[in-house]
Amino acid sequence: MALGCRVFIATSLDGYIAREDGSLDWLASLPDTGEDHGYEALMKAVDGLVMGRHTYETVRGFGGDWPYGKPVVVMSRTLGPDDVPGDLKGRVEMTGKEPAAIASELEERGWRAAYVDGGAVIRGFLAAGLVERLTLTRVPVILGKGIPLFDGTGPEVALELEESRAFPSGLVTSTYRVLRR
Amino acid sequence: MALGCRVFIATSLDGYIAREDGSLDWLASLPDTGEDHGYEALMKAVDGLVMGRHTYETVRGFGGDWPYGKPVVVMSRTLGPDDVPGDLKGRVEMTGKEPAAIASELEERGWRAAYVDGGAVIRGFLAAGLVERLTLTRVPVILGKGIPLFDGTGPEVALELEESRAFPSGLVTSTYRVLRR
Repeated sequence: MALGCRVFIATSLDGYIAREDGSLDWLASLPDTGEDHGYEALMKAVDGLVMGRHTYETVRGFGGDWPYGKPVVVMSRTLGPDDVPGDLKGRVEMTGKEPAAIASELEERGWRAAYVDGGAVIRGFLAAGLVERLTLTRVPVILGKGIPLFDGTGPEVALELEESRAFPSGLVTSTYRVLRR
Repeated sequence: MALGCRVFIATSLDGYIAREDGSLDWLASLPDTGEDHGYEALMKAVDGLVMGRHTYETVRGFGGDWPYGKPVVVMSRTLGPDDVPGDLKGRVEMTGKEPAAIASELEERGWRAAYVDGGAVIRGFLAAGLVERLTLTRVPVILGKGIPLFDGTGPEVALELEESRAFPSGLVTSTYRVLRR
């Protein structure tokens, strides 16, 4: 059975996932209303994560405990096995492979579903036809500039809306199933 | 009282308002489910429209009757009064002015609300702090490339979600109020 990849990401109304300098202050400043946007359910449903180096370094940069209980594969052309810090040995793995090869390898390990995170990783998995379900949360702000989720280089992808919810914080979370990929 | 400008536009999930060649086939191919996304109410609430030359030419290009019963101001650096076709005299007006000057003039004429349409016009009115309310309809498709609504040059704009609705067609329509502009 093919690996089903899931995307779960927040963007500004103008489609940015971070400010130009990578800052997420516009996300962090949202009121904590205890809303469940589906993150816990997603983390339960997947066997692990695939993320980009930028996302990995951003999460490390938050300090504190490593937030993932499941295995994390980090896509990087520059980092290798020796770059995994001691406290993350056995939990984080570096790979220089492309999305299709990563998906095959994870399937062989018995993974059924992966959470793919980070702009370039998401675009790569979408372009390779590996994404099954996409959850986008729209944050009620126009940033004006920043790092985009979509960069104008990808293929057309037909989607079907599965669910959409608006939250008291003003976030709108919509989940789409990929129809043709 | 200041002119309240409203935006009402559909984009793909990746933020495009048209394909690179201006095509709207991905919008036209949506199933006609008779859904009311708020367009009629918007048209009732405004005194007229301000649109860009591209939007004007696209609407003219559809052929058939001119669809607007209310006055339309077309922003263009190249078209003048003599370029208004005979059948649109008195209903369409060309202007080379900037958003703030247009808004002042329309206020003086007694306009209370205007529907501003077209990517560049929307960005111009947003940047000038003239937009009061923004309704974005997300179409369930990733186009990959196209003409973007936001182009990475605008200011940051804080918004408040007023309402969001998902429709059987898969469209998600969300209305935001501009908080700081």
